[in-house]
Amino acid sequence: MSQRGILAVVSGFSGAGKGTLMKALLSGHADQYALSISATTRQPRNGEVHGREYFFITKEAFEQMIEEDALIEHACYVGNYYGTPKSYVMEQMEAGKDVILEIEIQGALKVKEKFPDTLLLFVTPPSAEELEKRLRGRGTETEEVIRDRLKRAVEEAEYMDRYDYILVNDDLDTCVQKMHELIQSQHQKTGENLDFICEMKQELKQL
Amino acid sequence: MSQRGILAVVSGFSGAGKGTLMKALLSGHADQYALSISATTRQPRNGEVHGREYFFITKEAFEQMIEEDALIEHACYVGNYYGTPKSYVMEQMEAGKDVILEIEIQGALKVKEKFPDTLLLFVTPPSAEELEKRLRGRGTETEEVIRDRLKRAVEEAEYMDRYDYILVNDDLDTCVQKMHELIQSQHQKTGENLDFICEMKQELKQL
Repeated sequence: MSQRGILAVVSGFSGAGKGTLMKALLSGHADQYALSISATTRQPRNGEVHGREYFFITKEAFEQMIEEDALIEHACYVGNYYGTPKSYVMEQMEAGKDVILEIEIQGALKVKEKFPDTLLLFVTPPSAEELEKRLRGRGTETEEVIRDRLKRAVEEAEYMDRYDYILVNDDLDTCVQKMHELIQSQHQKTGENLDFICEMKQELKQL
Repeated sequence: MSQRGILAVVSGFSGAGKGTLMKALLSGHADQYALSISATTRQPRNGEVHGREYFFITKEAFEQMIEEDALIEHACYVGNYYGTPKSYVMEQMEAGKDVILEIEIQGALKVKEKFPDTLLLFVTPPSAEELEKRLRGRGTETEEVIRDRLKRAVEEAEYMDRYDYILVNDDLDTCVQKMHELIQSQHQKTGENLDFICEMKQELKQL
């Protein structure tokens, strides 16, 4: 069956638990997945490491990457560029790794437009009430930040049906397992097995 | 998430091991799946039981079902009708069971046309050589029958890419597990969760 890796984009509400989910997925199946690392022109925050959280690059370097079509998608937020370097993603997929991109919705839709075989996954808590509970439960955010995230969730929810699959993150282990099975099942997609089908047709004719 | 059952159609070459696969899938997860039983006007063979292998009905009864649009698909082979009664499939899906239809390619494509959400699975041995080996290995068929099946496989292979997923049946247990994960993952499809998405949007606005 298909040896090439799958490209899976994961988006979801702030508070849906994407970060924890990604960590659990990758630590459980380190040999199968590669997490794409974004490039950004913003300053590193405390504890952030170049090449781990982000590739921290200059505005000039970023704009050159745009010019050279070296980014799968990019966007500008609050005066800073964010984008997904193409070369890393392609290398990993060619090597048979399934590549996970954790990016926001506009970026996700751009990737799907450019690469229609991309698997778009949307992670959500089981209810809006639970989302609010999780955001407040962190205990680290001001009321303003929480209201802002909930407002953003309302906007983001409008795009949920543009995704291929909806993953409800109720229990972490169950959700990780479902995500893993979902991504792995994509290797059996007809479009991923055209070489196999072609060989089968030829071999059958020669019998 | 979606409570309604999935409709999965399984086709594949004669000799691909569909029968054994179906039996293993259903015996391992009897509470989750229902196997659709076809209606036919042909005579029961030795050991075949009405309501188990087929519903054996008269030509008149079959034609009345066609007239009443009571069949999902039907076809005529060697002077006999074969078809899938709609009511059983719909009842099981409404009850939350994933319904498996094991039918040939033309029927499968008709079902997909009528119900675009249907999951089309094509089961194949890992190679044409292995297919021939399995057909001969049975030791029960004449050379003519084997040549006939291989000729039919050549024709059937032309439709492989009309299926959603290709399942290579190399090791039975692995294949059953893959088929199960594949069908279950369909419950997370966006189209199966439109009610959930709609509720989420409304709830978020009310926070």
